[in-house]
Amino acid sequence: MYEEVRELYLSRGFGGRVGFGMNPAVIVIDMARSWLDESSPLGSRNAAGVIEPILTVLAAARGSAVPVFFTTMTFDPAGAEAAGPVGRKLRHSSDQRALDRNSGMPDLDPRLGRRADEILIEKQRASAFWGTPFGAYLTARRIDTLIITGCSTSGCVRATAESAHNAGLHTIIAKEAVADRSSLAHECNLIDIDMRYGDVVPTKDVVEYLYSRMNTRSVA
Amino acid sequence: MYEEVRELYLSRGFGGRVGFGMNPAVIVIDMARSWLDESSPLGSRNAAGVIEPILTVLAAARGSAVPVFFTTMTFDPAGAEAAGPVGRKLRHSSDQRALDRNSGMPDLDPRLGRRADEILIEKQRASAFWGTPFGAYLTARRIDTLIITGCSTSGCVRATAESAHNAGLHTIIAKEAVADRSSLAHECNLIDIDMRYGDVVPTKDVVEYLYSRMNTRSVA
Amino acid sequence: MYEEVRELYLSRGFGGRVGFGMNPAVIVIDMARSWLDESSPLGSRNAAGVIEPILTVLAAARGSAVPVFFTTMTFDPAGAEAAGPVGRKLRHSSDQRALDRNSGMPDLDPRLGRRADEILIEKQRASAFWGTPFGAYLTARRIDTLIITGCSTSGCVRATAESAHNAGLHTIIAKEAVADRSSLAHECNLIDIDMRYGDVVPTKDVVEYLYSRMNTRSVA
Amino acid sequence: MYEEVRELYLSRGFGGRVGFGMNPAVIVIDMARSWLDESSPLGSRNAAGVIEPILTVLAAARGSAVPVFFTTMTFDPAGAEAAGPVGRKLRHSSDQRALDRNSGMPDLDPRLGRRADEILIEKQRASAFWGTPFGAYLTARRIDTLIITGCSTSGCVRATAESAHNAGLHTIIAKEAVADRSSLAHECNLIDIDMRYGDVVPTKDVVEYLYSRMNTRSVA
Repeated sequence: MYEEVRELYLSRGFGGRVGFGMNPAVIVIDMARSWLDESSPLGSRNAAGVIEPILTVLAAARGSAVPVFFTTMTFDPAGAEAAGPVGRKLRHSSDQRALDRNSGMPDLDPRLGRRADEILIEKQRASAFWGTPFGAYLTARRIDTLIITGCSTSGCVRATAESAHNAGLHTIIAKEAVADRSSLAHECNLIDIDMRYGDVVPTKDVVEYLYSRMNTRSVA
Repeated sequence: MYEEVRELYLSRGFGGRVGFGMNPAVIVIDMARSWLDESSPLGSRNAAGVIEPILTVLAAARGSAVPVFFTTMTFDPAGAEAAGPVGRKLRHSSDQRALDRNSGMPDLDPRLGRRADEILIEKQRASAFWGTPFGAYLTARRIDTLIITGCSTSGCVRATAESAHNAGLHTIIAKEAVADRSSLAHECNLIDIDMRYGDVVPTKDVVEYLYSRMNTRSVA
Repeated sequence: MYEEVRELYLSRGFGGRVGFGMNPAVIVIDMARSWLDESSPLGSRNAAGVIEPILTVLAAARGSAVPVFFTTMTFDPAGAEAAGPVGRKLRHSSDQRALDRNSGMPDLDPRLGRRADEILIEKQRASAFWGTPFGAYLTARRIDTLIITGCSTSGCVRATAESAHNAGLHTIIAKEAVADRSSLAHECNLIDIDMRYGDVVPTKDVVEYLYSRMNTRSVA
Repeated sequence: MYEEVRELYLSRGFGGRVGFGMNPAVIVIDMARSWLDESSPLGSRNAAGVIEPILTVLAAARGSAVPVFFTTMTFDPAGAEAAGPVGRKLRHSSDQRALDRNSGMPDLDPRLGRRADEILIEKQRASAFWGTPFGAYLTARRIDTLIITGCSTSGCVRATAESAHNAGLHTIIAKEAVADRSSLAHECNLIDIDMRYGDVVPTKDVVEYLYSRMNTRSVA
């Protein structure tokens, strides 16, 4: 049904294709116990379901020396970092079990196999760019294309896509590698993202593109 | 139908009420010819339909000495400012008729009656905060609450609400004073905003709150 | 000698007094082993010398329920976070002993007695605002005045003062509570700061102001 | 005398060489009537003196299809945009003759010969990055190196160099193409910049590097 939004927006000059650029990076958003463990308030079976597509993207990136970044969300146990409107709107941000820095819940899923030179960004808002050095990590590596994977489509994925578009990056969402605890929110937000911020692309095309980068990446 | 998203997100600790703070400002987003004039690619009858509720909000703000801000979007006629991914995704950003700084199309609707001391922000992305001094204008006035009106719900309204939430502000959307060219995108995005970023509140409650600020605002 | 810069700039409309606002916060910049321990490449006797004035500021802030923030700098041991121009310009940013997150060197001086609800910000650039949520922590607490202490005057203190001024805050530097490993750089940069970004004020005036806030702070 | 600061900082791991990157852009900061016309409160003979070196940098950039950006500062005539601490610290920001958007004073010096596709950025703070889309203009063009020219060394030049360094760019200051109304502030701040943020390089080396970019720039 939300496809009617796509039609309307396409007719008004939205939804052009940005395409892949020349020097990509991959980001894996919030694939940590807080979102994957169903005992967590934030947990969702849907998030757990995208581990496999993400692993294929990671294999392609690592095989082509494309930089990989991970995010998680962390707040202090005392609740000072979520004081005010943020903690009021999002009770899990001050809920010790869900995002407490010391609880183990924000730890990345071990299947991702993060390497020592793959940066883990601890963020406190939806976008990986907000309140973090992430944008500068990309510029220091001459990245022009950001491949986005992880969860949740209606929150951190969309917000990161918006920030990447704002920053002037070729913004690409690997379709089968992003998820939302609501399938409906997932579908609707993918269309909004595709119309406004980044290309929503089949994961197999992303993987093929990443392998094509082998031996072409400029040396810093 | 999208109400099921609200139910699911409420059950997971999203969607708390931030409430009104003590020192509000009002922003009117993109109520300019580019969005109101149906001959513009961006134009929409829905946007034109929220002029009346916005005028009631403005009357209340002005009557209580609450600061008012306006936005529009402008790009250079040569297309340099929309070069790269932004112009590829959003063709109207490099479309001279729609957002050309010198075309008259980005001019505010005269019914808004902008006063000399009400700041007009020229932005180039969805959020009023992105690439502009807007956040500092608010801090310099000790604002803790941002009332959001204008268009479009799925674009500039949502992005501005996200930025305001990120900034630590009490974020309030005046429900009948925001619009989208797609009624469906409007409804779905209002729920996402309400769950994640700001309270979606009946305009009459916003107006009542603004009048309550009369004689209470701290002097800078 | 650098006083001639003050005279020239005053004559051209710089160097006005912003004064104290109504709702202050205190920040203590980089008072950690990396800067205080003379065995560290960054270490300086001058930095160690401002612990005492900082403690008087902290006592006044805590006595008046004024929020206190601390910063330190941390990078990953593998050097990925300082890759590119940053690590080339500042070799200590990729020097494991000086700023390695896991080395203990970035730990705050224990005499500061940081409390559980006083936020510690880990930054990677000179300004406490850059790449961190610090600005939002202030807005969420309705802060309009930032009192700056710590080191170094020509680096992190000046950069944080510039950011605070940019953000629209009343920016105050407690004169005897900031230091630089070079006394000359200290003197020259204090004048630049005073002319452009924030008022350089005797620490005793800052302490008096902070005590005056007792029982006046608005409840969030 | 300030050379002793360089020696001390070099001995502590500051002041490394970042060198030129692969894809440069040039920025010309605030070479407008407000700073060049001695009848303006901000005006300085020293600023006027760097027009010639800037023109040689511009010729090299234009000859090699290297993007060129300009800045100026503008505020609204009513003073709303400089309300609060900014206007208190910098009286010229609310002084209609100096930076009033409609006064003609912020107009670029015509000798710069700005072309239609060279972007003019209107900023309200020292850094060209603050409150503007400048960072995204660079990313959209895959820029990794920013060449800085213009005025003033202790203000907008230093602040822009700091921002460029923060952003992960190779930051280069063309030594003879920057100026300050105080020669002393000029010399001292060049050393701070060279130690902390960007390489201060003879203008002739910058010009040679820019010509070397001919036929090497990647097509977007």
